[in-house]
Amino acid sequence: MSNTDRRKFLGTAAALAVGTTAAAAIPSNNMAKKYPIVHHVFFWLKNPDSKEDRDKLVEGVKTLAKIETVKDIQVGIVADTEKRDVVDKSWAVSELLFFNDLKGQAVYQDHPVHQEFIKNYSHLWDKVVVYDIANV
Amino acid sequence: MSNTDRRKFLGTAAALAVGTTAAAAIPSNNMAKKYPIVHHVFFWLKNPDSKEDRDKLVEGVKTLAKIETVKDIQVGIVADTEKRDVVDKSWAVSELLFFNDLKGQAVYQDHPVHQEFIKNYSHLWDKVVVYDIANV
Repeated sequence: MSNTDRRKFLGTAAALAVGTTAAAAIPSNNMAKKYPIVHHVFFWLKNPDSKEDRDKLVEGVKTLAKIETVKDIQVGIVADTEKRDVVDKSWAVSELLFFNDLKGQAVYQDHPVHQEFIKNYSHLWDKVVVYDIANV
Repeated sequence: MSNTDRRKFLGTAAALAVGTTAAAAIPSNNMAKKYPIVHHVFFWLKNPDSKEDRDKLVEGVKTLAKIETVKDIQVGIVADTEKRDVVDKSWAVSELLFFNDLKGQAVYQDHPVHQEFIKNYSHLWDKVVVYDIANV
């Protein structure tokens, strides 16, 4: 390594180290700034007691990660939290997607990977509820 | 810098560089691994047309970031996406919280900051729907 290269490397290393420290110091609200548009879909299964159908749908939702405007994806099932009147535990699979902007969300809607997902997996669900959220 | 220190520093720098490259190579699904428990709350206002009430509730929800087990928080309003039958646009404020585990979510429920939020802001809402999600 030449002296110039070493200086360059150390400079990059220092920048990385500073970046890491800064990120760790912010307790929360990082994602809200990063991906301002959130798309949360809840699926109710045609066979609500079928773990096989649930797992198949989870597998299907995960294919949506391939869409280039999907910046992050979380696929979930009902968590084992306390039963309370306000908590809806009747759904089966949750699809939480993050976009940079409304345009990214529109690209996702019409994307062949999304269309393929609907074609291959929609026979599994009975009901879908969608929430589109703009972070403030 | 002694030779030992330099070796240590270069080692750390290399590890950070590798970490950064690896993260950049994964297109998505980072948060799912980071915060496996998601708590998504939707609020319907008593005065659905009051932007003042909406903004006040947004301000209230943001106080929840102070709770130590809340690892990330996104506060949102209805996004200007296409109107479709499956999209619910009747709510006013969305609270999306991320936890490390179920215990963290339980701590949040009973936390004084959460109780204070309910005391000070619950007069604003008419209905609440909660989804508790375990990422898979």
